[in-house]
Order: sequence, then C-alpha cells, then structure tokens
Amino acid sequence: MEKVIITIGRQFGSGGREIGKKLAEQLGIAYYDKELLRLAAQESGICPELFEKADEKASGNLLQAFAMGFSMNGAIYQPNDYFTDATLFQVQSDVIRKIATEGSCIIVGRCADYILKDEENCINIFIHSSQEDRLQRIRRKSPVSEKEALEQMKKTDKTRASYYNYYTDKTWGAASSYHLCIDSSAIGIDNAVALIGNFIRQKQTR
Amino acid sequence: MEKVIITIGRQFGSGGREIGKKLAEQLGIAYYDKELLRLAAQESGICPELFEKADEKASGNLLQAFAMGFSMNGAIYQPNDYFTDATLFQVQSDVIRKIATEGSCIIVGRCADYILKDEENCINIFIHSSQEDRLQRIRRKSPVSEKEALEQMKKTDKTRASYYNYYTDKTWGAASSYHLCIDSSAIGIDNAVALIGNFIRQKQTR
Repeated sequence: MEKVIITIGRQFGSGGREIGKKLAEQLGIAYYDKELLRLAAQESGICPELFEKADEKASGNLLQAFAMGFSMNGAIYQPNDYFTDATLFQVQSDVIRKIATEGSCIIVGRCADYILKDEENCINIFIHSSQEDRLQRIRRKSPVSEKEALEQMKKTDKTRASYYNYYTDKTWGAASSYHLCIDSSAIGIDNAVALIGNFIRQKQTR
Repeated sequence: MEKVIITIGRQFGSGGREIGKKLAEQLGIAYYDKELLRLAAQESGICPELFEKADEKASGNLLQAFAMGFSMNGAIYQPNDYFTDATLFQVQSDVIRKIATEGSCIIVGRCADYILKDEENCINIFIHSSQEDRLQRIRRKSPVSEKEALEQMKKTDKTRASYYNYYTDKTWGAASSYHLCIDSSAIGIDNAVALIGNFIRQKQTR
C-alpha cells in the first residue's frame, strides 16, 4: 500500500473511533486520537491538561500558561501569561503536519482533514449513525440515562461542529467536506472498516 | 439479491445520474430519473410540461391546470384551475411510492429518500465531486463557458437544496441525510458503482 493519511470526522457515539482503531490495526499503521494532545503538550511544553480542556472546542476563552511557560512562532509565553485556544490549535496543527510527514496513519477529529488539505495522500472520512445506535453505544460505555446520553450527544456534536466550522473553511458533517461518509448503523463497524479499505485501494489504483 | 430501492441525491455535474444508470444496468433493475415526470403526468392527466417546469423546484408559484383538468386526493381540478407545485409533489410522491412497491429500482433525486423513509429496503446515496471535475463534466455535455458552467452548477444545487429542504425534514447534502456519500472525483464513476454495490451486499447480509 502507498502512503496514506486517513482522517476521520465523526458524530459522537457513531463508532468512528472504533472504526479508526480497527482500520489502523488491519493496515498496520499508526492511530492518533487523544494521543495528539499528549504529543502537542510534549512538543510545546504546555501542560497536557490545557489541551484536554480545550480539545475540539472553540471557546475563545483565555488560557493561562503555567509551570514552564513555552515559546511558539517566535513568541515566548512566560509562566502565568495568557493566550487563546487558537494558540493550542496552532501547536496541534504543527504536530499533525509533522505526524503526516512520518508515514501512513489515521487521525481522528481535530480538523486534521483541513490542516492536511494540501497533502496528496490524504483521504477524509466521516462516520455518522442513527440516533438509536448512538444512544446505545454511549450507554454501553458510560452509565448514563437515555436522556443524559441524548444531551451528551447533541452537546458534543454541536461543540465539534463549532470547532470545525471556526477553524476550517468547510462545514462539519456536510458530505462535500469529505471523500466518503458512512452511516455505520446501516452496515456495522466491521463492514465500514472493510468499505474504507476498499475505498483506499480504489483511490490508490485509479 | 433481495429487493432494494436505491435513491441517489447528487450535486449537479457530479456524475450521480451516470452512476445510477450503470448501477441499474449491473444489477438488472429499473432506473428512474426524468422518467418519473412522464409517469406522474400519465398518472394524473396533468401535462408533462408542468412537471418539467416544476422539476425539483420549490417555487411556491401557482401553476395552471390546462387541457384535461385532473383529480387528486378527492379534489377535482378543472381546466384553467390554479394549483401549487405542492400538488405536483404529491402526484410525484404517489408515483414514487407505487414504483417502490413494484420491485427493486434506482430513483434519482426528487426527495425519493424522504418519500420512502418507511420502506425497509431503501438505501440512500449522495454523490458529490470536486468543483474542477464537475465543471469538466458539465462542459463535456453542453457547450458553455467555464463561467456559465459554474453559474449553472451553483444555481442548480441551490434549487435542489431548497426543494429538498422544503419538502423533507432533512438537509440536502448533509452526510447524516444518507447512508453513504461518495466523492466521485476521488475514485471515478466505475469505482463508485462498485462501492455502492458492495455497500448494498454488506447491508443485506448483515
């Protein structure tokens, strides 16, 4: 297989993460999701908790550099300096671009499709699912009521959409923002993994 | 293959029609696109030109029943009576529901995914494509300048989206409105046909 960077956008509870992990295992390539936050923290010296807090949120809030301070794009942030979450987005973008130069991989969320838009070998996937299927998946993973799961689902999707729409020139969840969008509840996780595998082969052997 | 109703939504110039036709040939099933207008005209006695004029447009305009007049849902329209394009939508919906009872088929556009939302064997596809690819396809089919092709493309998509968003509770071109969305410029027409074929088999053998 030629080098490929697969980005996966996903509705909360749609199984996008699971699909990404299984696909990475099958293809024998690296997988990045929350791992990106740790790498971005390492790279910048900003504490990981700040990345966790700002993850896929466009809050516009000011964040405080503590512990070590850090430098980025020539600016030096001292301990206790304030900066915006756009700074974190910048650090994360640099990490994503660096990862993409290193070899084939799968990156979940974090506007990776937009950040890597000039990368030829990039394939952008979006996973969604029926509400029923998503609620079941959320409740299998955490002990919440159906009502709570529904609220979590709506809130997380809204936050992800705002983040994506703020930092990119595309629309989160619009078919035209991706090469392939799959309703995972129609065919199941394993079939979705196989379908993406086919799509990659089709694109690479055209 | 079990009975399957495949609906295809598509951006103008994306090759959705071509994909639908090829898939219908491969599966040996019926294909409906503009054919629906003729059937709806036959069914209602409304002249075909009115269906052509109102095709996939939510204009809100009044249309005039001429020639024979017609009856629908208990209402009798005399020659020269006025009615809205919602009436045509109703006639067309009845035709689409009737077609769906008759056996496997492919229906392009005309909100068929929404009209058949309670049909278990229905698979909803959306085809889109890069702007470059669409402009080339439009210009291969009609002798227009690039600027004219671009205008046609934007206008037709806008009209289709308005029509779909007016008559359904879903959003035209949103990934979550369909089971599978494909960027045909990423893999080409024949690969897209094969991918949809796979998807149908996956869904039917789950």
